[in-house]
Amino acid sequence: MINQHYRELQDSYLFSTIARKVSAFQSSADLRQKPLIRMGIGDVTHPLCPAVVAAMKEAVEEMGRKETFRGYGPEQGYDFLRDAVRQYYAGRGVLLNAEELFISDGAKSDVGNILDLFEPNLTVCIPDPVYPVYVDTNTMDGRSIVYLDANEENGFLPLPDQRVKAGLIYLCSPNNPTGAVYSRDQLKQWVDYANGCGAVILFDAAYEAFIHDSALPRSIFEIEGARTCAVEFCSLSKTAGFTGTRCGYTVVPDELEREGLSINRMWLRRQTTKFNGVSYVVQRGAEAVFTPEGQRQTSETIAYYRENARIMAQALAAMGVSFTGGAHSPYIWLKCPDGLDSWSYFDRLLREAHVVGTPGVGFGRNGEGFFRLTAFGTREDTEEAMRRMQNC
Amino acid sequence: MINQHYRELQDSYLFSTIARKVSAFQSSADLRQKPLIRMGIGDVTHPLCPAVVAAMKEAVEEMGRKETFRGYGPEQGYDFLRDAVRQYYAGRGVLLNAEELFISDGAKSDVGNILDLFEPNLTVCIPDPVYPVYVDTNTMDGRSIVYLDANEENGFLPLPDQRVKAGLIYLCSPNNPTGAVYSRDQLKQWVDYANGCGAVILFDAAYEAFIHDSALPRSIFEIEGARTCAVEFCSLSKTAGFTGTRCGYTVVPDELEREGLSINRMWLRRQTTKFNGVSYVVQRGAEAVFTPEGQRQTSETIAYYRENARIMAQALAAMGVSFTGGAHSPYIWLKCPDGLDSWSYFDRLLREAHVVGTPGVGFGRNGEGFFRLTAFGTREDTEEAMRRMQNC
Repeated sequence: MINQHYRELQDSYLFSTIARKVSAFQSSADLRQKPLIRMGIGDVTHPLCPAVVAAMKEAVEEMGRKETFRGYGPEQGYDFLRDAVRQYYAGRGVLLNAEELFISDGAKSDVGNILDLFEPNLTVCIPDPVYPVYVDTNTMDGRSIVYLDANEENGFLPLPDQRVKAGLIYLCSPNNPTGAVYSRDQLKQWVDYANGCGAVILFDAAYEAFIHDSALPRSIFEIEGARTCAVEFCSLSKTAGFTGTRCGYTVVPDELEREGLSINRMWLRRQTTKFNGVSYVVQRGAEAVFTPEGQRQTSETIAYYRENARIMAQALAAMGVSFTGGAHSPYIWLKCPDGLDSWSYFDRLLREAHVVGTPGVGFGRNGEGFFRLTAFGTREDTEEAMRRMQNC
Repeated sequence: MINQHYRELQDSYLFSTIARKVSAFQSSADLRQKPLIRMGIGDVTHPLCPAVVAAMKEAVEEMGRKETFRGYGPEQGYDFLRDAVRQYYAGRGVLLNAEELFISDGAKSDVGNILDLFEPNLTVCIPDPVYPVYVDTNTMDGRSIVYLDANEENGFLPLPDQRVKAGLIYLCSPNNPTGAVYSRDQLKQWVDYANGCGAVILFDAAYEAFIHDSALPRSIFEIEGARTCAVEFCSLSKTAGFTGTRCGYTVVPDELEREGLSINRMWLRRQTTKFNGVSYVVQRGAEAVFTPEGQRQTSETIAYYRENARIMAQALAAMGVSFTGGAHSPYIWLKCPDGLDSWSYFDRLLREAHVVGTPGVGFGRNGEGFFRLTAFGTREDTEEAMRRMQNC
């Protein structure tokens, strides 16, 4: 009676192994002169901005008064927030209809749940290295996975292989873990390929706010033809520090149909049946992100993280370390020096510099020999970590 | 490539048909003397209690300060809330281990998502009439459904049929839509049956807070043997007015195993892969529900709704109308007078009393000839609606 595919799931020991190693090191080493600096996990550290805090407090008060209390809201989100997100897209020339936008509790939920709409015997193309959720959610459904090699040769940006007949394709740009960003031309190749073979692209745009070059696409819907082949997932987690507040959104275009069924209508049916919408208070906080004040405040925080990334990139370049990311991404993906493998470099960095990062091999086979650092720390820690790395 | 089972879903026209009929009536009738009273939808009307409002405001402030900001939390919920819910259960003698409790954004999500753990070719037993989500989520997966007839003969409380080899069994007590409540003896029959044939009971306890008779079970885990055959879903939606705030919890016992796999571990894997936890601010609000102050305040609101239900039950009894519910439930399920079918009674009540309810047939075949009223309105509206019904 059990879904047997759960037996095929690999337990992820990545972050638990890191935690165990760090903990063992902490109890054996003297860290008083050189405290540990954590650049491993992809979580933000800056608080919610004042505009969001004010909006959420007001919404909580509304919920406490009979005249302004709100019960069940629309499963796909309140119009005030959907309209705000649509305006955000419109600012980049991407026009969305109201019913194309779905508010959710985060991209992770939607990226997993969208698979409800597709049959299990589909070929799924997933980049390697990769955010493990794409792999695990498809393994749970028993789909066969074809990995797209992301490596130094292709700048960690794999392009379509015409020999593969894909059903679903995962793309994440700016990429987690590599920080690499697709150009318009490259995304156009993916869109043309998907339209050609009938595949659906699941585009993860969670880090779009880190792109500061208008030549680079922040949404797949900036690419001609994407409306007939793509779904886009986005999140306020990294854009506005919502990792613990939980709000994201998913765009499913009206034109996206397969086998005579509208993917948009299917997703609406899925969400109205298995989801009851995001907390009103959180939606009011999310709305505030898109006000002029909220945009100014959140972009200050992003600028702070981006400056961290720039400092890291500059230091690594000075050290002669090869890397991707850092320019339009909170992640730096570096090649371990001296030909070290990912875990050996992890151990060395921990032991010599007291810096914690993430071994690249934890994100897939092609991650071996690479290492991920994040720019979400404080300026002081970031600068100090780079000084220590230069000294060791 | 599409999940073909989505083609088998029936569109639910119930609430849209109600809305259309009400809207047509409003534009044709003079409602100035006798305004419309809505007793149709199962949504609460009282605001969040002061303890919850205070806790959420404080949490929002915490999220706005660097020192107290929180990023990603545990997917299964913060310990402060899990411990509070465990204490709530312990108050009724149900002892739960920490890892058996999962915090979610609501029972609807979990009731739908739990099906990820089970294979599609299982027989699912679902009461009729029923909350439509049980039927739709299984239809999406292509499972075959056996309906359990709930009718006047069995007091709308179906018991096991030994001839059926069930895989999954849905029970909801107090029931939506009928308001009927299982006794301990009756639930024990279900538990014994499930343990006998290896079925898993999915127990929906969303209305447990309306039970005010310690002889009636509020949790299936009050029944001996349930820990090897049941999962329980609960919600703060009706308990504490969280329909728009979104928080629920699910209990998956450690002992619940099938085919050598722990359902508890499978659910943990599902949630850590496809969910990122409930908003910290909402979890702090939920925690406040379980403080002495929160319990006192929320029970005042429940007492208010229960008094509405009592007034309705008394009036219907005086009219000689047969009904279930009302005592330990916010719902009253009445037999349409004069042998009317559900929609004819809907039309008559709307036309003559200007009262909106829900036709029972909308919840399933056995609902024909029945009608649901809710106790979530104001005292004045409830009393006025009963006066009008007595007059017509």
